[in-house]
Amino acid sequence: MKKFINSVDDFVPHGVAGLVMAHDDLLALHAEPLFVHRRSAKHGRVALVAGGGSGHEPLHTGYVGPGMLDAACPGQVFTAPLPDQIAAAARHVEAGKGVLLIVKNYAGDGASFQTASDMLDLDHATVLVNDDVAVESSTHTVGRRGVAGTVVVEKMVGAAAERGADLFECKAIGDRVNACTASMGVAFTSCTVPDAAAPTFDIGPADMEIGVGIHGEPGRYRRAVAPADEIVSLLVEPLLKDLGVARGQQVLLLVNGFGGTPLMELHLLNRIAGRHLQERGITVRRRLVGNFATSLEMAGASITLTVLDDALAALWDAPVTTPALRW
Amino acid sequence: MKKFINSVDDFVPHGVAGLVMAHDDLLALHAEPLFVHRRSAKHGRVALVAGGGSGHEPLHTGYVGPGMLDAACPGQVFTAPLPDQIAAAARHVEAGKGVLLIVKNYAGDGASFQTASDMLDLDHATVLVNDDVAVESSTHTVGRRGVAGTVVVEKMVGAAAERGADLFECKAIGDRVNACTASMGVAFTSCTVPDAAAPTFDIGPADMEIGVGIHGEPGRYRRAVAPADEIVSLLVEPLLKDLGVARGQQVLLLVNGFGGTPLMELHLLNRIAGRHLQERGITVRRRLVGNFATSLEMAGASITLTVLDDALAALWDAPVTTPALRW
Repeated sequence: MKKFINSVDDFVPHGVAGLVMAHDDLLALHAEPLFVHRRSAKHGRVALVAGGGSGHEPLHTGYVGPGMLDAACPGQVFTAPLPDQIAAAARHVEAGKGVLLIVKNYAGDGASFQTASDMLDLDHATVLVNDDVAVESSTHTVGRRGVAGTVVVEKMVGAAAERGADLFECKAIGDRVNACTASMGVAFTSCTVPDAAAPTFDIGPADMEIGVGIHGEPGRYRRAVAPADEIVSLLVEPLLKDLGVARGQQVLLLVNGFGGTPLMELHLLNRIAGRHLQERGITVRRRLVGNFATSLEMAGASITLTVLDDALAALWDAPVTTPALRW
Repeated sequence: MKKFINSVDDFVPHGVAGLVMAHDDLLALHAEPLFVHRRSAKHGRVALVAGGGSGHEPLHTGYVGPGMLDAACPGQVFTAPLPDQIAAAARHVEAGKGVLLIVKNYAGDGASFQTASDMLDLDHATVLVNDDVAVESSTHTVGRRGVAGTVVVEKMVGAAAERGADLFECKAIGDRVNACTASMGVAFTSCTVPDAAAPTFDIGPADMEIGVGIHGEPGRYRRAVAPADEIVSLLVEPLLKDLGVARGQQVLLLVNGFGGTPLMELHLLNRIAGRHLQERGITVRRRLVGNFATSLEMAGASITLTVLDDALAALWDAPVTTPALRW
């Protein structure tokens, strides 16, 4: 296994510690139980807590900071965080206005966040993200998976919390963003979980998996690698159908790399997807391109669309200062 | 070849166009000859122009914007830009105070920038970056290669230009940053240039190349993959020796991914390198961790150290607003 690693046990806590060292103006580390939280105290705001298995960085730890999350709880690689982590993080960052938990829809995450929720004696609510249109159920899920659209949910709800929205409104915005967000991905290669030391799945040297999950879960089908134009169609058309996007509507386009795909290829996809949408009379009002919800070193990418109105665009545009998103 | 690509000829121009679309508040595209420049006009400042082969993104196009470059000229993948691109970019962004050309030390880049320099009838100077301590000469070079330290040079000179330093001072700062910056990398895998469609080099399933170049050029030696602690020693010790860093000095630590290595591993290296330096009595005053000078999808990383004094730290801390660096 070719990885920068000392031991499987230390990998996540030491990696997270390294993240906090690199951003110690913004982040603080809580070592036991493990979570990352904002360095600056806040008052009178809804606190946002997300979490999930590690290996999707910068999701979620890279999104802690003003305008986005208050805390993030990393589990072991591709493994849900423990309820203790989530409950401790929620208690740590709560500041009198309640806590919103943001959860990707996987069986393990759902169970951990539910147990944490039961442990909490403070005002809280949960937003479940399930933006992946590829499959209705998968290895790790009942219902649709939560993937890169989570970044959009966290950004927009973070902006709402920052401007003083209450818990009820934050939850409503999170649910609404999730409802108007859809994603679909494609993998060229598998990734290798350190604990397993072997690739998660096998794929032929000329094949791609359309609709792959961010843990390498099976997608819709496998076929020969196609030109980028064709791949974009295979990803974007199911999104438009799922969201029912009509001519004249505006979208946020997120082209997300899974970790092992060069930035130039992601920008190439961005150009193609923009033209594809334009041809359908859809305006790309905002764009984000890069590695935002990864699958370790998997080569591949996903496309996420969020249908925008002025209110959501304003939440997207609001200032954000985190390790992985800042403007 | 598993890449998001339509045709080899379109790959770079369309990828660069996608970058500009994603950052059209900051960047503008000049299509023929190809370069990227700041959208906002500037006056009375030295203009900074960099360039080099594509495939190292975000280097250099991702560093165009206030506080860093004025223009970047991307060549084909791993191929120097043409003199016409460089000369046109320099003329386009020049604003009465001259142009500083920032060049990584490769034979092709050196020749292109020299020809461009001969074509220019405006005040200009050149900073040659050669931070890679691994080898004195390599496939593409005479003398040391320019690698991730280029990011540090571009950032610090950009800050100097922004605060009004003249061409002479900008060149002196660039040369000084280069002189106190050293880098060394390690590769786990090769990368595949689209035009070649096959990996640049072969490497055994359990081997790593210590001192690899950012085009997959040979390094110092090849050996079995070791624990991360040991790899950090193999990279950092030659840097300390090269720079002659003494106990009590301060450094900027840049942990740079080559493209195919997960962020968590880079942060793990960051933690280890910081402790390694601390044990030698060296203070890590600033850190930067991520994919900043890549080699397409190569798995691996480099470590760069820049010896800091207060003046250089202030140049590093100065505001920067580019696609890939902003604070």
